[in-house]
Amino acid sequence: MTNPRALRGPVEIVGVGLLGTSVALACAAAGLEVLLSDSVASHVRTASGLGAGRRRKAGDTPQLVVVAVPPAHLGEVIVRSLADNPDAVVTDVGSVKASPLAYVREHSPEDVRRYVGGHPMAGSERSGPLAATATLFEGRPWAVTPHDEADPGATELVEQLASLCGAVPLTLTPEDHDQAVARTSHVPHLMAALVAGRLAVAPEGHLSLSGQGVRDVTRVAAGDPGLYGQIVAGNARAVTDLLTEVRAQLDEMIAAVGNGDAAALDVLLKEGQAGTRAIPGKHGGPQTAQATIYVTVPDEPGNLARLFADAGESGVNIEDVRIDHDPGRPVGVMELIVADDAADRMQSVLESRGWVAHR
Amino acid sequence: MTNPRALRGPVEIVGVGLLGTSVALACAAAGLEVLLSDSVASHVRTASGLGAGRRRKAGDTPQLVVVAVPPAHLGEVIVRSLADNPDAVVTDVGSVKASPLAYVREHSPEDVRRYVGGHPMAGSERSGPLAATATLFEGRPWAVTPHDEADPGATELVEQLASLCGAVPLTLTPEDHDQAVARTSHVPHLMAALVAGRLAVAPEGHLSLSGQGVRDVTRVAAGDPGLYGQIVAGNARAVTDLLTEVRAQLDEMIAAVGNGDAAALDVLLKEGQAGTRAIPGKHGGPQTAQATIYVTVPDEPGNLARLFADAGESGVNIEDVRIDHDPGRPVGVMELIVADDAADRMQSVLESRGWVAHR
Repeated sequence: MTNPRALRGPVEIVGVGLLGTSVALACAAAGLEVLLSDSVASHVRTASGLGAGRRRKAGDTPQLVVVAVPPAHLGEVIVRSLADNPDAVVTDVGSVKASPLAYVREHSPEDVRRYVGGHPMAGSERSGPLAATATLFEGRPWAVTPHDEADPGATELVEQLASLCGAVPLTLTPEDHDQAVARTSHVPHLMAALVAGRLAVAPEGHLSLSGQGVRDVTRVAAGDPGLYGQIVAGNARAVTDLLTEVRAQLDEMIAAVGNGDAAALDVLLKEGQAGTRAIPGKHGGPQTAQATIYVTVPDEPGNLARLFADAGESGVNIEDVRIDHDPGRPVGVMELIVADDAADRMQSVLESRGWVAHR
Repeated sequence: MTNPRALRGPVEIVGVGLLGTSVALACAAAGLEVLLSDSVASHVRTASGLGAGRRRKAGDTPQLVVVAVPPAHLGEVIVRSLADNPDAVVTDVGSVKASPLAYVREHSPEDVRRYVGGHPMAGSERSGPLAATATLFEGRPWAVTPHDEADPGATELVEQLASLCGAVPLTLTPEDHDQAVARTSHVPHLMAALVAGRLAVAPEGHLSLSGQGVRDVTRVAAGDPGLYGQIVAGNARAVTDLLTEVRAQLDEMIAAVGNGDAAALDVLLKEGQAGTRAIPGKHGGPQTAQATIYVTVPDEPGNLARLFADAGESGVNIEDVRIDHDPGRPVGVMELIVADDAADRMQSVLESRGWVAHR
């Protein structure tokens, strides 16, 4: 006898943009029947043409409905999907979780047990079905957010969907999820936007001193303001709570710098340093001591391949890489981040092969 | 006849830590006589043993003195160097420029014409003479900050030092320099510390949703709080002015998110987006349209070399790279950033060689 809770399809995808079509492609690749719906008919044709599934027809009875519409419409579309599919489990891939749940509780309290939210931590700079790929979620965390009234079978089905897409399911309550993403995503994005906003009004020539640091700090602020505004609006409470905490710390910082209070500034800088160490390390494990090796690389095709081939000879795993982009630089500086206790070996292998490398 | 303003040495380095010893090594490599001084005698022995020069003796007459001591002692050591070397030009490598100049103006007004500050935009996670290298400044901007009373020949000598070290000299007034680094370095660092500080107090489990974005935003906050506190203290006025602007924007942001004022939030996010575009592009040129290709890479030695070799076959230059570090990820995701109009070619070459790649 088959497991009644096993994900066997059909899976309906409502909203075939980047995320929805990527989920559809992953389900189709796993052999499940996939039904596609979108308010834009041409998107369904595009997704269908990519092999993501077929248009949903009257009489279709999905086992699982995945709502992948813009944040502002989530609650409404989840409620309609619950009503249209009285036997189906409904989930979504939205980036906030408490507000859609509150909407469902209010508008279809009798069906809320069949709704369990989800949030795959993946995306792309591009949008729309043509940017979709079955591998978008490979190795990414996928938050699954059951609530008090959720049917355990519904939660299990959503976890299976995450696994089928190659993601790693992580279970949190909707409230914990929203507070967590406020802290790890929304507030960092907003603060990056404020720092970047000061660059937008810089006097002529001042930005020529920009180094890698400010590029890193502000990079996420390049993202789509329209989409990000919707995301933040959907998590307004958690975001304003945390921004208010940041403002209090900023007031302390302004006072410390303005008054020359080195001890007070040190407390704030040390807390920041501790925070960088609190982020989980590679593969979710604890962070290990790492060292950076700086290598001068003429900026031409082929040189990176030669560098990595030579680095590979050391047998040392490269944990991270970056290319420095200081302005006015005639050559590139590549940073290879490796385990601290392997750095000497890597450096000497590179130097023996003619690279200019330093720590 | 030789150019009387040509840098011909001897060059004295006062303070043989990372920066001082690196300048010394570059000068020595260029064939100049290098004199070394440090309040820690063993540092001079170490630097000397590395081939950075010899201990300064009575009767030595440097042409140029490079002061490379911690920020808190800069003014005092510059003044002493001017007094000890009545015919020499004196410069420094400190990260703030107005406050040491003010100190020199106050304490040796008759010698201030022989002092021109400098600030090489380079560093390392390591410190001390053993971390030094002649190539530390290769391709980096080196701010040269002449003031109203500076002798033009002194400015020229400092520019020659920057070029000799492989750096690109950029001329700014001391005031412009300090405002520029407040905007491009000090305030981004401080804001990163505040965002990271909120991570330090995160509830159990919340940081498991950390993605690449928050890692980028907070990375610089991992730096040494003691050193950074000194740097910020030396630029207190410019930093507090700018932090106060950021606080006003933060107040607007909290109001916008709290009141659900999408238009007001959009203005702030769009200004941030504009700021990310204002940063000069690679090699100081304008930013060009770029695309990101995501490639799944099993996390083992040798795979990166294979990837870059295959990528090299496309003939497309890789502008930037990064490795994604989402927790719980069983495989790595490598991001290759290339010119937008070359992305299709790169992606198809990678796919033809068996890589799972998407945009």
